Amino acid sequence: MSGIKKTSKSWTTRRDQKAARLAKIDHLLKGKLLGNEHIIEALELLISPGDKVVLEGDNQKQASFLSKALNEVSADKIHGLHMIMSSISRPEHLDIFEKGIAEKIDFSYAGAQSLRVSQMIEDETLKIGEIHTYLELYGRLFIDLIPNIALVAADKADVQGNLYTGANTEETPTIIEATAFKDGIVIVQVNELVEELPRVDIPSSWVDCIVVADQPYQLEALFTRDPRHITELQILMAMMTIRGIYERHSVQSLNHGIGFNTAAIELLLPTYGEKLGLKGKICKHWALNPHPTLIPAIESGWIESVHCFGGEVGMEQYTAARPDVFFTGRDGSLRSNRAMCQVAGQYAVDAFVGSTLQIDGEGNSSTVTSGRLSGFGGAPNMGHDPRGRRHSTPAWLDMINEQHELARGRKLVVQMVETFQSGNEPVFVESLDAIKVAKQAGVATAPVMIYGDDVTHVVTEEGIAYLYKAQSLDERKAALEAVAGVTPIGLRYNQNKVEKMRRDGLVAFPEDLQIRRTEAKRSLLAARSVEDLVEWSDGLYNPPAKFRSW
Amino acid sequence: MSGIKKTSKSWTTRRDQKAARLAKIDHLLKGKLLGNEHIIEALELLISPGDKVVLEGDNQKQASFLSKALNEVSADKIHGLHMIMSSISRPEHLDIFEKGIAEKIDFSYAGAQSLRVSQMIEDETLKIGEIHTYLELYGRLFIDLIPNIALVAADKADVQGNLYTGANTEETPTIIEATAFKDGIVIVQVNELVEELPRVDIPSSWVDCIVVADQPYQLEALFTRDPRHITELQILMAMMTIRGIYERHSVQSLNHGIGFNTAAIELLLPTYGEKLGLKGKICKHWALNPHPTLIPAIESGWIESVHCFGGEVGMEQYTAARPDVFFTGRDGSLRSNRAMCQVAGQYAVDAFVGSTLQIDGEGNSSTVTSGRLSGFGGAPNMGHDPRGRRHSTPAWLDMINEQHELARGRKLVVQMVETFQSGNEPVFVESLDAIKVAKQAGVATAPVMIYGDDVTHVVTEEGIAYLYKAQSLDERKAALEAVAGVTPIGLRYNQNKVEKMRRDGLVAFPEDLQIRRTEAKRSLLAARSVEDLVEWSDGLYNPPAKFRSW
Repeated sequence: MSGIKKTSKSWTTRRDQKAARLAKIDHLLKGKLLGNEHIIEALELLISPGDKVVLEGDNQKQASFLSKALNEVSADKIHGLHMIMSSISRPEHLDIFEKGIAEKIDFSYAGAQSLRVSQMIEDETLKIGEIHTYLELYGRLFIDLIPNIALVAADKADVQGNLYTGANTEETPTIIEATAFKDGIVIVQVNELVEELPRVDIPSSWVDCIVVADQPYQLEALFTRDPRHITELQILMAMMTIRGIYERHSVQSLNHGIGFNTAAIELLLPTYGEKLGLKGKICKHWALNPHPTLIPAIESGWIESVHCFGGEVGMEQYTAARPDVFFTGRDGSLRSNRAMCQVAGQYAVDAFVGSTLQIDGEGNSSTVTSGRLSGFGGAPNMGHDPRGRRHSTPAWLDMINEQHELARGRKLVVQMVETFQSGNEPVFVESLDAIKVAKQAGVATAPVMIYGDDVTHVVTEEGIAYLYKAQSLDERKAALEAVAGVTPIGLRYNQNKVEKMRRDGLVAFPEDLQIRRTEAKRSLLAARSVEDLVEWSDGLYNPPAKFRSW
Repeated sequence: MSGIKKTSKSWTTRRDQKAARLAKIDHLLKGKLLGNEHIIEALELLISPGDKVVLEGDNQKQASFLSKALNEVSADKIHGLHMIMSSISRPEHLDIFEKGIAEKIDFSYAGAQSLRVSQMIEDETLKIGEIHTYLELYGRLFIDLIPNIALVAADKADVQGNLYTGANTEETPTIIEATAFKDGIVIVQVNELVEELPRVDIPSSWVDCIVVADQPYQLEALFTRDPRHITELQILMAMMTIRGIYERHSVQSLNHGIGFNTAAIELLLPTYGEKLGLKGKICKHWALNPHPTLIPAIESGWIESVHCFGGEVGMEQYTAARPDVFFTGRDGSLRSNRAMCQVAGQYAVDAFVGSTLQIDGEGNSSTVTSGRLSGFGGAPNMGHDPRGRRHSTPAWLDMINEQHELARGRKLVVQMVETFQSGNEPVFVESLDAIKVAKQAGVATAPVMIYGDDVTHVVTEEGIAYLYKAQSLDERKAALEAVAGVTPIGLRYNQNKVEKMRRDGLVAFPEDLQIRRTEAKRSLLAARSVEDLVEWSDGLYNPPAKFRSW
């Protein structure tokens, strides 16, 4: 052994620390159960200054009882925490930084809190580690962001500590796994304690402490879009996408981002798609949350399967009644799994279709606009060409645009945008705001959501740019200009170039796709209101009050 | 609802079918327990012709009792199965195709069976769906390859049907999840039935049928490399990698492929790495199976954490005794998780370092050689630049090689190869055998393991080509030629060009890295035999008999 010195350190520091901390709350526990009146005391005894704490702010589900409790601990006792959160969603997620309880954060998405995040960075009350996509944040939980503490939410527990997470399983198993199997402490808030669980989603061996919350965890209906607000421009773009992309390339499996553009596509499948004879040929398999706007396509037999990242408020009964389509458990209710759905959405589908707020002349896009550091969420995991992919599908092969013995296909990455945002801000811009924001926030690279060289198609109300066909950056730019309307980028438009690109198939206008702009009517939508969606669902869809207008 | 017709089909066909099939074996079951003498009868009753069957042929763990049983069913009753297997490892995995029990296969890796796979494709006894990486195969289980039946292996079950998968958890939870939550039938072979499990890895709600196998599942020691076989050329390459890549770019988290090259690196950290003062600066976090050759680096305090895809035979006690480093469960034994480790290995580490059998002049590489369709395994998931990644690390940022406001870093993808394979076959070739094999097998694209434009560094016994610095394909080719020795590619070598590339940092020879070739001695290895590894481990490492020479 060449006289090399072995280290004399202990190999069980994490395990010993965990045991010592749990011993301190022993008098508060009955088995794994903690009375909710003791939660603040317990957190003060279980957490140490500087700990890495992963707090479940999911996309939809929030461990709101635990985040409120964390916000009440004494900053004298607990300070300098390194928070890890996929989503910064609630005020107290940031309050803890102002109080000094926490110091640094690694996160994926800031959503509603993006403005305050930017301000707090400027004020230096919040120190950013890195901004991630979901999958890379989950990955780091097993590499260099291993948590000491997990604060998560489940629907139900039994007295042994087994958990039922039901429809909103989301990222709970992933967070718990990284913590529980590295001698971290797993604290779970549940809505109720029951004798027997409908099914077990997480075994009690992975859980240390259960507390029944004073009220159910917060859950947001993030993926519900009211068809009443879908415009005829969006319908036009949806028709172009179905005709010029899904049909043309045989897109059989896909992910849709959130928004009215993709909701319009979902609602046109049973009408316009049916008329084109595409049923059974496109859009059969989905990596998608249970969008209510998917109901008509399901009910009319278009959809073979949907795997979900999370649940959606109001869709519980509907998904439970359609187990041939959705993944459900032994109890009959939806099973979601964010990590695996992101993996599937990255590697196993033909196409990602999303929207954005800004696109530059090279096709780079971002949802970061001045003063708002909103983060990435999961879109970049799906909105890129996964170069680790090796299997082929017709759509993937259809993207090959070179003569090379080793040529490989590409994933379809589609951006659907109107050339101007509401408020008359151009979407196509000379330079992304993200560049300025990156400098202000002091992050190493500009927060680009999707890079131009990963985008295969851009759809606007003007037409489709088939960017995957561009043989050079100049061709890519020219194709973008052709569909960018009267934005600064669109004004570079050159009539002769555009005609040539239409002939070469780099650009298609509605007429090139045999679509008349006057066809794009709201009457084409399979459902024109939330009430219609409820009717399509045979009353199984139960929309939240704010979506009810009848 | 515009008069669109709703489908009148049942929404519970899978659930009904599952219930009907399980009812047929009711008389054979005691709870979920099936006597192993009934397994063939049970499979004949549970499986239907044409079913999608996912059979656990993991990288290491094999559901060998179930695969043998499947090979014994009547082909009159069960035929035309569509098999899904991450690894084709055992003879009966292919015998079932010759008997007509199965017809089509989607897989990731063929390993020892690669020659027979190629022959059977030629003979048309085996129909290939697609060849995948692990993550894309797992992804498709939730999209368009949803299993009807899962045949998997666990260590232990309790009478309720909860499972203990222990150190070799690997892909079992992923396979089961895709099946159980889409009303498929989950059949598990276990080594033993116990009163109380050491911990629960998979809850009984996910399992339908448990059978105690006649002998423990097959488990291969795939990741064990005997240090006796490490050559001085490999030590030289390992020194260059540590100096010219890990130190230069501050590589803190990484994945190593299988092989003697990377084993040499692992064994040089406590000696050569120590001498360079790199402890605590490089190689702290790993996505890696528990390689025995990692023991000296762990024991001398180099390694902070290791997350594992699977276990390794003989490393059970050692990993259990080092919970600060390895992920372990409440029972103290290793927890592995193939899917999450692949995600971490893709998105959360600085570098992937692997080896290959052939590299062409553009840097494309493949392990497919004439007559052997070996598949991909997980290497491409880690051996590419994950364009969905958004967080930065020093090593990632160090790969930026352009002036652009939106410039982003890259993952380090390192290929370590000697210029000639054993048998005197050149590694650097004009054209990959994969191109011919693809044509013979009728697959749509040539099976390239790692594409040239994803490779950042190639290390040979001649030196390092820093391919990420190449500004054009021609520069990339020239840098490769400079390190390709006397192979057909290396013979294109141009002395003047090479000197310029050394000055520009595109190429480094050992002397450019202050490494004398004569330093590369076996005496530098922290362990020079398996016995040394056992000694380093304080007797906790228990190598399989075939690795014992004392």
